Parts: sequence; structure tokens; C-alpha cells
Amino acid sequence: MVDREPNWYERYNASQIVTVRLRLADAPGTLARALEAAGREGAKIGNVSLVGVDGAEKIRDIQMFFVDPEHQQRSIDAMRLDDVHVVEVIDEVMECHRNGTIETRSRVKLDTLMDLRLAYTPGVARVCERIAEDPAAAWDFTAVGQKIAIVTNGTAVLGLGDIGALAGLPVMEGKAAILARFVGVSAEPILIEERDPMKIVDVVAAISPGYGAIQLEDIAAPACFVVERELQKRVDKPVFHDDQHGTATVCVAGLLGALERTKREIEGTRAVVLGAGAAGSAIARFLVELGMKDVVLCDSTGAIYSGRPERMNDEKEALARVTNPNNAKGTLEEVMKGRDLFVGVSKPNLVTKAMVSSMAKDPIVFALANPVSEISVADALDAGAAVALDGRGMNNALAYPGIFRGALDARARRITPKMMRAAAETLSARANGAFLPNMLDLEVHRAVTKAVADAWDPADVT
Amino acid sequence: MVDREPNWYERYNASQIVTVRLRLADAPGTLARALEAAGREGAKIGNVSLVGVDGAEKIRDIQMFFVDPEHQQRSIDAMRLDDVHVVEVIDEVMECHRNGTIETRSRVKLDTLMDLRLAYTPGVARVCERIAEDPAAAWDFTAVGQKIAIVTNGTAVLGLGDIGALAGLPVMEGKAAILARFVGVSAEPILIEERDPMKIVDVVAAISPGYGAIQLEDIAAPACFVVERELQKRVDKPVFHDDQHGTATVCVAGLLGALERTKREIEGTRAVVLGAGAAGSAIARFLVELGMKDVVLCDSTGAIYSGRPERMNDEKEALARVTNPNNAKGTLEEVMKGRDLFVGVSKPNLVTKAMVSSMAKDPIVFALANPVSEISVADALDAGAAVALDGRGMNNALAYPGIFRGALDARARRITPKMMRAAAETLSARANGAFLPNMLDLEVHRAVTKAVADAWDPADVT
Repeated sequence: MVDREPNWYERYNASQIVTVRLRLADAPGTLARALEAAGREGAKIGNVSLVGVDGAEKIRDIQMFFVDPEHQQRSIDAMRLDDVHVVEVIDEVMECHRNGTIETRSRVKLDTLMDLRLAYTPGVARVCERIAEDPAAAWDFTAVGQKIAIVTNGTAVLGLGDIGALAGLPVMEGKAAILARFVGVSAEPILIEERDPMKIVDVVAAISPGYGAIQLEDIAAPACFVVERELQKRVDKPVFHDDQHGTATVCVAGLLGALERTKREIEGTRAVVLGAGAAGSAIARFLVELGMKDVVLCDSTGAIYSGRPERMNDEKEALARVTNPNNAKGTLEEVMKGRDLFVGVSKPNLVTKAMVSSMAKDPIVFALANPVSEISVADALDAGAAVALDGRGMNNALAYPGIFRGALDARARRITPKMMRAAAETLSARANGAFLPNMLDLEVHRAVTKAVADAWDPADVT
Repeated sequence: MVDREPNWYERYNASQIVTVRLRLADAPGTLARALEAAGREGAKIGNVSLVGVDGAEKIRDIQMFFVDPEHQQRSIDAMRLDDVHVVEVIDEVMECHRNGTIETRSRVKLDTLMDLRLAYTPGVARVCERIAEDPAAAWDFTAVGQKIAIVTNGTAVLGLGDIGALAGLPVMEGKAAILARFVGVSAEPILIEERDPMKIVDVVAAISPGYGAIQLEDIAAPACFVVERELQKRVDKPVFHDDQHGTATVCVAGLLGALERTKREIEGTRAVVLGAGAAGSAIARFLVELGMKDVVLCDSTGAIYSGRPERMNDEKEALARVTNPNNAKGTLEEVMKGRDLFVGVSKPNLVTKAMVSSMAKDPIVFALANPVSEISVADALDAGAAVALDGRGMNNALAYPGIFRGALDARARRITPKMMRAAAETLSARANGAFLPNMLDLEVHRAVTKAVADAWDPADVT
């Protein structure tokens, strides 16, 4: 969540990161001429390293950023000078993912026969017998209590959409790498090429004994709602759809700071949430859970209310029952009038400056659509917003690592709204004047872990 | 495979391994008296370490082996002397398994925002797009080609039997730890509490996109045969039931040395295999695959032949068609007469010295039942066996790591008999005068890997 316009580093596609190995004449000014040639083409330069000196030549690695492959080709070609030779172009993104970003390791030494007698036969038999007598002992003497499954069918991967589970695997591995690095949770991507939500539920329920919790990821709405609800009925362990609740947690974390800055309380704030997919639905529900009394959820038709004649389904009917207490009707433009808070998780450029101006005094505008927001931060501020943020830096990886580690540590059977609230409040409290803290600060994840574990209360599960 | 009687270290249950922390008077002879007291009770002493000196006392850790918990209690109590205090008793087996023996780790650095841009968003999107265009790219840019699923329903775990999938997890983790340590394969235990083989097939087929191969483990016969056969029809990746084919590979590896020592060729050797479960069935089939012309498989009823009136099923009918070419009938005792090779994977003490004496001259006796063999090595040798081995040291971990690593490296779609033969021959060639090599020698696993990868030929799959 950032309240200024994006710089080039944010605007550049940034998945086009390469390292170019050059062989240059070892003479003053050669590097400068090569970089200048690339710069004229609009290439951006990252790290410059000296690899070595070979006779009268230097070998250098230049990290470079491009807009697209054509831009890359053109810029690299521009660097080919009489005394500058391009030796190799390494695609850093692809190389980072070669053979995957996660791996399974042994936690125990396996160098001697005695090691094997402890970790494997014959010693392991006694551990098995202990768990056969008391299944709860698996939380102590296996990795079950350290492990989650990251389940996807690949129907809503990042901004890429329905690319299938296998093509979504690099994202799942990235999330697993983050979980391992940030909080020591072992996460296993489970790929299910299947659209029928009940079949997904059957498969995940069948393999659930090996995991302490289930993270659903990148499953499109409305199937994601069915999978989560039905799976949670079948499995007495946390089932958490990150695109819903992870997003809602991080969004609310940012909102807490914005409310404070505009001297509002949650209860009296009147909100409109645009986008009735996984994220918008969960944000609206979570705001209501937190005590916000007037939340209207909009889709492209306008306000969602009970009994709306067009473009409704079971999920939207259920949402209409918990939100929109005054049965507000109308277009987004009509519904936004006089409201304190706009949260958009929808599509680019759906909000005008006039719509922001029609809101209550000092409104809060969270325009979180990716990669282009519903209204630019500059336009929203210009139209009178007291706080305007877009989706940059609003990363679920702020929330889910600590949420899962906390739930596992507490041996929780659900992830309750109370636990999500504890996570959001912790993130907000650690934002240090910004709206969200630094995702790379491991202390933040430790704090979220503790807050979430402390907030687990079996009495909250009916 | 060992051709001498077991020593105490092998006879002791050996899952009763503890470290006892003692506080002893720092005076000559105190340790000796403590150890002597334990030794009188039959306790065996492993490592003795000096932890520290505290005033007039030494702190020592004594690793000790016991037959059972009662023996442990009695022996430790005997060490409690005026000047020897038992501070703590650490169960080494249980501590080795605390929080599991495997974990998932990030393979990439995740310390900076640039690291995250490569491993996660936005960079990861390009990797996803590449795989969406060309699914085969997943073998290069995800962990799929490094990963296998270890699938169990826990119905035939070690010698413990039907204890359920969760109680079997420590065994699956041990196998995964071995795969990680020996050959760098990431293996994920998949626990399915289910007896219907077709339901297991459905679940495993559904999650198969995330894995390069499937290892079936500790699934009881005859369900294991159905799961393997039907799953292999659905999944165009190696499906390998280790209790069948891993055991058969290691058994044949040992047999190759025994045949050489008794100057026999596979083709002319006449064999009887006792035990028609997973291991016996696979050993009989593999011997036939290798060219052995006369193999008779026996169960507790006797020789299995086509059309036998009692205790038959589809699996046994199928086995009768590929084995027993002369339709031999009769009890084990009758069938063993004049045969060159006995392989037992059944129950203790089913073979007498007279039965061994009735075999051909210089017979080979593999009595592999665990923990007590069909006939002791001493009795078999006494009855005239030229080679007699029991199951000690016959560990599947000699075979499956290299078999899976080799299959993944070759991107094989099946594990063929030719690949198993390559593994067996490699193990035999590296046995250095014994019948099997040292499982801890990583060179052995590298050699098996290469032999198996080289032996993959797509033309072998119909």
C-alpha cells in the first residue's frame, strides 16, 4: 500500500530481469560507453560486478531491467561495440526457478548405521506404535504439526487467470519458500487439475491427515467459496483461502492506520467495497465481523442486495444477508455518495474523481486493483481523499506466514476472525508510521505468529 | 543379507536406545561401578561422553541399549548408587523424530526485495506463462522433476501391520529423509486413510501433476496390486510399489552374487519362492523377467498353479500364468525337492533342515522373513546350503533412492524391469565380496542412479 505514484522500478514489468556478461577492453571509459548505449534505449541498470580480468579485457556482469523481450534485445544489441562483447545473457527469473524454489531436506543426521537405526528401522517402529495408540502424538513426533498443504487448481493465478494448476506451481513454490524462510513452516504444493469444487474437497479431505492445516490458493470464485466451506466441514483443521482471508487481513491492517489518521472508529465508518470475487467478499465479511455496521458490496451491476433481480447467485445472496443492512440499491456511483471508505479489488479505472468528491469529508480510498488501480493515488488525493493507497506493497505474504505458524503452534482447529484481527492489529502496530510493515522483517512475522496463537480459543468454534 | 548368526546388537530390539545423564562423584572407579551395575542387568553400553565437571561431580551421558522398557527401568535403577545420580533419561528414538525427520526449505535466497521479485511476484508470472505455453517446461523450472509422492494407507507398515496411514508417517518421513540425503530427491508423504484401492487411485491420480513419480509404500496385498496397476494406467509417470519391486531388486542383487559363487546361470536355476504377498509375488515375477525358466511360487497352501481349487484369487491366477511352467503341485516340502534356490519372504521357522537337504546339490537359501527367518543361517548351512542368507542388511534403501533419482533424471514414464535389472547388477557389482554393498556409501547410489537412467528406453513401454 503506497500513497505516491509508482516510479520506474515499479512500473517496469520487472519480470524482465537479466544479467548480461560483457567482455570489455580494460581501458578507462569502456564500461561507461556500454552503459550509456543501453541507457539511450531505456534500459535500467542494477548491480554491476567485476567477474575478472583476462589479459587486456575485463569480464563484467551487468544486471539490467527491461520492459519486454523486444526492449531487452534492442538494448543489449546497442551495447555491442568494437571493444565490448556480449558473452552471455542470463535470465535471472528463469534461473532462479530452475529445478524449483523449494526442496525437502532431512532434519536428522543420516551418516552412520546408528543414525539410520534411530530415524528409520528398527527405531521408527516404536514411534509408529506410539502414534497408533495416541494419534495426537503425531503432532509431537512427525512433521504434521509443521506442515501445511497449499492447494490450487490454477483457475485464478495472480493476474494470469485460469492457467491450470501445473502452470501455477511456481507461485505455490514461491509461497512455500516464503513460509519456510519466514516462519519455518513446511508447505507442500498440491496441484489438482479439477474444476468441480466437490471433487477438490474429496481429494483434499483424503490427503488431509498428513497436514496440520490447508491453505487454498488461486482457486477462482465462486468455486473457492464452496471448496472452503465444504472442506472445513470435513476436516477438523484450519482451512484458509488466502486470496480471501489473507487479502482481507492485510487490507484491514492498512485500514486500521487510515482510520486512525482520519480519526474514525470502525463501527461508525460507512464503507463500499467494489469487487465481489474472493478478495472483495472476504473484505466485506471481515469488516462486518470487526463491527463495521454499514458495508455495501458492489459488483459490476452495482450494490448487492437481497433479492436483486439480476446477476445473483447463492454466494451473493449470502453476502447480501450479512452486508448492506439498509438494502442500498444503485450503481457504484450512487452508492459511493457520502460514504467514508472505498475499497476496490476490481478492475482498472472504474472510479472517477467526481465519485471520490461525492464521498463524505476526508474519505479513505483504497484502490487496490492490480496492476492498474481503480483510480490513481494522485487523482484520488486531488479529489479530496484524506488517505489514498494503491495495491503496491499490499502483499499477502505479510499475513499468511504468521497466521499459519500461529495456528500450528496453537494446534488450532480453525483460523477464526479473532485470529485474523490479531494479525491485522499486529501488522498495523508494527507499520512504523507507514500503513504496513516491511515484509522482510522477521520480527514482524514472529509478532504475528504469537498474536495469532494467543487469539486461538476453542470456544470460538461452534 | 548376512550369512552368520546375529550378534546381540542385531538381536536387541534396538528401538530401545536411550541416553542416560548421570551425575557421578569425580573419583576414580565411580563410572566403572555404575556401568558394571547396569551390565549385570544385561544393559549394553554405547557411547560414553563427558558433558562437564561441576564441583566435585562429573556429568556424563551414557548411551544404552535395552531389550524392552522393563529391562530399561531395571538397568537404570541398578545404576542409582550412593555417588551416582540419574539426572535424566532421554529416549533417543523419540527425540530423533520430534517435529518430524523432514522439512521443506527454500532453495533460493529470500533476503531482499529483489530476491522476492525473482522468486515470487512479479517475476514468477513469466515462469508461469512459460509453463502454460509448454507444460514440459515444468520439469526445468519447478521442483516437479525433483519430487516424488510417497503414498501409503498404512495397512502393511513394517512388521507392525495395519496401523493406519498417520501412524505409518514416521516410516514415510524416514524414507523421505533417506531420499533427500542419499540422492537429493524431495519426497512428500501422502497419507490416505482408505482401503478401497480404486479410491486411492482416484486421489493419487488427482494430485499426480505435482510429482515426477509415485512411490507406493506399505499398502497391503492384494490392494497394492490393484492400486499400482490401475494408477499406472491413469498416470503417465513411474508408479513403483517399493515393497514389491524395491524388495525384488535388492533380493536379486544379492542373488547375483550367490549364483556366481555357486557357478549357476539364471536361466537354468530352478527356484521356489515362499510367500505370495507383495514381496514374494514381485520376486517371482522379476526372476521370470530375468530369464529364469522354472520358478514356483508357494503360499501357505503350497505351490500356486493355474486352476488350484483352494485359496486362489485374481492376483494368484495371474501369477500362476507367468510362473510354474510345469504346473507343479504340492506342499512347500514337496516342491523344494531338487530345487537350486529357495527364497522365503514369509514367516518364521517354516523350513526344516531336512527340506534344505532335499534340495539340489549346493543349494542357495535366502530366508528373508523378519525378524525371525524361515530357517536360521546356521541350520541351512548345516543342512548343506552352499549359500545361506537372512534378511539382515537387506534394506530397500539400497535400491529405491537410485531407482527414483535415475528415473527422474531420465524423465522416464515407467520404471521398467530393465531399469530394475540395471539397479540390481550395479548393487551386486559394488558388493566388494559381500552380497550387497554398504547402504551409506553415496557412490553406490550415484552408480545405481546412472545405471537406471541409462537403462530407460521409451520403446520398452507399450
